[in-house]
Amino acid sequence: MENYPLTLRALFDRSQSLFGKKEVVSRTNSGISRYTYADFGRRTRQLSSALQGLGVKPGDRIATFAWNHHWHLEAYFAIPCMGAVLHTVNIRLPLEHIVYILNHAQDRFLFVDETLLPVIEKIQDQLTTIEGYIIMTDRQELPPTSLQPVYGYENILNDGDPQYMFSDDIHESAPAGLCYTSATTGKPKGVVYSHRGIYLHSLSIGLADTLGLSERDTVMPIVPMFHVNAWGLPFASVWFGSKQVLPGPAPTPGILLGLMADEQVTIAAGVPTVWTAALKAQEAKQADLSTLRAVVCGGSAAPRSLIESYEQRLGIPFYHAYGMTETCPLVTVARLKSYQDAASYDEQYTTRATQGLLVPGLEMKIVGPRGEVAWDGHEMGEILLRGPWVATAYYQDERTQESFHDGWFHSGDIAVIDQEGFVKLVDRAKDLVKSGGEWISSLDLENTLMAHPNVFEACVIGVPHPKWGERPLAFVVLKDFALQAGDKADLLHFLTPKFAKWWIPDDVIFLQEIPRSSVGKFMKRELREQYQTYFTGD
Amino acid sequence: MENYPLTLRALFDRSQSLFGKKEVVSRTNSGISRYTYADFGRRTRQLSSALQGLGVKPGDRIATFAWNHHWHLEAYFAIPCMGAVLHTVNIRLPLEHIVYILNHAQDRFLFVDETLLPVIEKIQDQLTTIEGYIIMTDRQELPPTSLQPVYGYENILNDGDPQYMFSDDIHESAPAGLCYTSATTGKPKGVVYSHRGIYLHSLSIGLADTLGLSERDTVMPIVPMFHVNAWGLPFASVWFGSKQVLPGPAPTPGILLGLMADEQVTIAAGVPTVWTAALKAQEAKQADLSTLRAVVCGGSAAPRSLIESYEQRLGIPFYHAYGMTETCPLVTVARLKSYQDAASYDEQYTTRATQGLLVPGLEMKIVGPRGEVAWDGHEMGEILLRGPWVATAYYQDERTQESFHDGWFHSGDIAVIDQEGFVKLVDRAKDLVKSGGEWISSLDLENTLMAHPNVFEACVIGVPHPKWGERPLAFVVLKDFALQAGDKADLLHFLTPKFAKWWIPDDVIFLQEIPRSSVGKFMKRELREQYQTYFTGD
Repeated sequence: MENYPLTLRALFDRSQSLFGKKEVVSRTNSGISRYTYADFGRRTRQLSSALQGLGVKPGDRIATFAWNHHWHLEAYFAIPCMGAVLHTVNIRLPLEHIVYILNHAQDRFLFVDETLLPVIEKIQDQLTTIEGYIIMTDRQELPPTSLQPVYGYENILNDGDPQYMFSDDIHESAPAGLCYTSATTGKPKGVVYSHRGIYLHSLSIGLADTLGLSERDTVMPIVPMFHVNAWGLPFASVWFGSKQVLPGPAPTPGILLGLMADEQVTIAAGVPTVWTAALKAQEAKQADLSTLRAVVCGGSAAPRSLIESYEQRLGIPFYHAYGMTETCPLVTVARLKSYQDAASYDEQYTTRATQGLLVPGLEMKIVGPRGEVAWDGHEMGEILLRGPWVATAYYQDERTQESFHDGWFHSGDIAVIDQEGFVKLVDRAKDLVKSGGEWISSLDLENTLMAHPNVFEACVIGVPHPKWGERPLAFVVLKDFALQAGDKADLLHFLTPKFAKWWIPDDVIFLQEIPRSSVGKFMKRELREQYQTYFTGD
Repeated sequence: MENYPLTLRALFDRSQSLFGKKEVVSRTNSGISRYTYADFGRRTRQLSSALQGLGVKPGDRIATFAWNHHWHLEAYFAIPCMGAVLHTVNIRLPLEHIVYILNHAQDRFLFVDETLLPVIEKIQDQLTTIEGYIIMTDRQELPPTSLQPVYGYENILNDGDPQYMFSDDIHESAPAGLCYTSATTGKPKGVVYSHRGIYLHSLSIGLADTLGLSERDTVMPIVPMFHVNAWGLPFASVWFGSKQVLPGPAPTPGILLGLMADEQVTIAAGVPTVWTAALKAQEAKQADLSTLRAVVCGGSAAPRSLIESYEQRLGIPFYHAYGMTETCPLVTVARLKSYQDAASYDEQYTTRATQGLLVPGLEMKIVGPRGEVAWDGHEMGEILLRGPWVATAYYQDERTQESFHDGWFHSGDIAVIDQEGFVKLVDRAKDLVKSGGEWISSLDLENTLMAHPNVFEACVIGVPHPKWGERPLAFVVLKDFALQAGDKADLLHFLTPKFAKWWIPDDVIFLQEIPRSSVGKFMKRELREQYQTYFTGD
C-alpha cells in the first residue's frame, strides 16, 4: 500500500488491458488519422525502444515542438514511461526564448512538426545540446531541411520493438515532464512534473465534481499539448479509456466545430479566445454539438457573458477553471454547490464567472497585507498554493526563492474569495497599486473604465507618491481621439460611485495607444518607468 | 509536488473550509440527529483533544464497536488525524474473535455503542490492554454498566478544545486504520490502512467511472462502518462535501427506505442481502426513491436477477462491485463500457452481473495452474492484486506469507475474465476441486444444482481420489425429503448438458441439512474431513 509507485505506467497499462478498441483521432497535414489504443500502445512501445536505440537514458530531457496529434500523444507516454523527461516547448514563444529553453533544459533530442521546421531551422545554430531532430510527419519522404541529423518519426518507429517493456522501477518522484512558463519579463522558468504529480492530477480531473472525465467521454484538448500538458487531458484520457480527438496544426474555429460534430465530442477544453471565436462561428453556421456535455475554459479569465452565451444560447455547460504551469494545472473549477442551484440567475452567473472552488487535494491560502483575507468577496490577497501537483521549485533557476518560500508557491495572482470559497482573480501582484498600505486592483479600475462609452482601452498603474507610497494613474485611449479635451473629469466621475474614494486614480493621461508586448499584453513596466516621477516631480 | 503528504487532514480540512453548511444526518436510539459539517469539525477537534487528554499518542490503536452514526464518523477522523489508528471492530464476530482482535491490536481505548454494551461486558475480563471505555450515547446519564473505567462520549467531548489543531507532520505511510477480516477458519487477520491508501482510495470512488461520488450526492452507507471503513464512503463524503445519512443501530429495510425517501438519498451502498430485503419491502410499500441515482452492491456476489429487478422494476441503476478488507476495499465495478450499450439486453446483464472492471490505480493478474489465464471468460485463475490501496501484509501475523508473496496479494478468489476485462468470481481457492491438474468450480456446480426444481440447497467439495487427485462430491438437500430415493441420476443428468464431462460430480449424497457456520456459510471444511476417504476407501 505504502510503496506502490504512482507512475505513468499505470495509466498506459490500463489503456492497453481494457481499452484497446477505443479510438484516437488526429487531424494531421494529410487529413484525419484514426487508430485504436491498441495501435497507440504498440507504437508507443516502439517509440521508447527507438529512443533507447538512439541512446536515450532515464533522466534525459527530450523536447517536443508540436501541435496536438497522435505523434505527440505517443511521445507523452513513450518518453516518461522509459524514465526520460517529456519537455514540451511552446511553439509560440519568441525565438530567443525557445533557444534559451532548449539549452537550459539540455534537451538531447527534439521532436518537430513538419510545419514547424522553419522555426527550428532559424535557431539550430544556437542550440547547444540537441543531438538529433525527429520529424513528426506521415510523408514517406522526409521534407527538405537544413536540420541535422534528422530522423523520420515513422522510420525510427519501424525499427522499434512493439514488445518493448517499460521498467517498473521508476520512482514516483522521478521527473516525467518539464514545461516552461511564458514569462512576460525575463527568461522563461521551467517546472518539472513528477510521475506522482501527473498521476494525482489525472485522478483529480476524473472526479465527478471537477471535469468528471470518463470512458464515456470523447475528449478534445484544443489547449495545445505544449501548454501544461494540454491541462493533463491526454494523460487522464489514456488512463480512463476516453476517445481522444486531437485537432492538429493551427485549427480554425470551423475546423474545431466540424471535428466536434463529426467525432461526437463530449468535452473540449480551450482558452477564452478559442471559445469566443467558436461561439461566433457556431452562431454563423450551426454545427451539431448535441453530444457536447461541457466546454472547459481556462488559461485566462472568461467573461461572464461568454459563459452565459454558451449555456443560455447554445445549451452547453461551461466549466470555468483556473490553474497555471506551476500547478499541473488544475487549481479551481467554477461549478455550483448543490444548494446554490436555488440562488438567483444573477447570483449563479456571478459565481460561475469566478475562478471557482479549490479541487480536492490542494491547499490554498489567500494572503493580503494583513495576513489571510476574510472570505467576504472583497479583501484582496495573493493566492498561495501547495499540494501533490504544485511545484516546489523552478528547474535549476535562482528565481525559485522569489516564488517558493515558507512551504508555499506564491502564485503572483491577486484574488478575493467569497463566503462559499469561490476564488475570483482581481489582478497580478506586480500590477497592484499599493496605496497607504492598502491594495488597489488595477484590473478592476481598467475594466470599469473600459465600460465607459467613450473609452477604447484603459490601463492603470501604480506610480510612486510622496505621501501614499503609490497612487493609481490611469491611461486611456478614447474611441474618438477628438473627444479628449474635456473628458478627464467625466471619467473620474464615472468611477466615483463604483469604488471607495481612495481607489480613484489621481490623474488620467490620454494616449493614442497603450504600448503592448509581442503577445498583446499591456507593457505596464514601460509605463511605470516612463511615469516614475509623475507624482514626486523628481 | 513530491513531498506533499497524502493524509486524511486534507479530507477533513476541505470539509471545513468549503462545506460547513452541508449536513450529516444520523439515526440514533433517540431519533434523528442532524448537524452540519461545521459541527462535525468542531466536535471532531474536541474529540481529538479529549483523546489527547486521556493520554492517546500517535500510533496508538483506538477501537470502535459501533453502528453507523455521527459519533462513529467523528472517530473516523479524530483518531487518524491526531496520528492514532482507528480500529473498527466487527460487532457481529464470535466473542472469542472480538477478544482476540482487541488484544492482538493492543487497543488502548474502546468506543462502544450504548446498545452494544452487553457484548463487551461479557468479555471485559479477557481484554488485556483496554484502559477505558467511551460510551457513544446522547443520554445525559450514562447507562449502568459493569465496564470500567467508563467515559461518556459527550462528557469527554465537552472538555475537548474545539480549536484543537491537527498536526501537519503525519507521514503519508503512517497507519490510519486497522480492520480485521472475518475469517471462517482460524483467527481473524488484521489489515492496516495507511493515510495514503485511504486518500487514494477516496479519490478512486470519486471518479466518474467508478461511483462518481460528488458534493451533489446524499450518501447512505448501509454497509457497516466496521466493514472496511463502510467501503470508504465516509472518508470520501467528507472530502467531497456530500451530505451523509448514517442509518444507525440495526436498521430494518423499512427504516432504510424511509430514510432514503425522507433525506433524498442519491446513492446507497450495501450487501446483496440488504438489497434483496429492501426490494421486497419496496415492492410491498412504495417509498419515494426518486432521488436515488444508484445503489452500490458488494461484499458478496449479487445475483443477476437482483440487478435486473432494481433497474427494470424500480428504475434504479445498480452498481455491482467487488473488493475485500485487504483492498480498502474497491477493486472492480461492473459498469458497461460505452460501446457495450449496443449489446443485447442479455449480454448487458451478463456483463453487469460480473464483478466488473478493475478501477484506475490497481494492478491485477489472474493466475491459473498454467500461468496467467486467457481473457476468454472460461479459464479460471486466482485474482492477484497490487496497488496503492492494496495491503502488503497482515498486521503482526505470520500468515502474511501465505497471502503476500512475489509482490502480489493473493486474494484466494478464483475468477474468470472476459475479453473486455470484466472479472467474474467463480469460487474460493480453498473450495476449488483440483481434478487431474484442472480446476473445477464448486460454486458453479452448486448454483446449477440449486436451479433444479427439487433442490433446496447444494454443496460441492473436492474429495481425495486415487487417480485424479480430487474429484467433486455433491451434497444435496431436497425440497421434499421423501423424493430422495430416485433422484441421483436425475440430478447428474440435469448437470450433464451444462458442464464438461469431467466436471460432473462422481456422486451425490442427500442430507437433511448442510452444516453451516455461525455466519451462515457452508462448513465445507467439516464435510471434507468427514468424507476424506470416500473415494479412496482408506
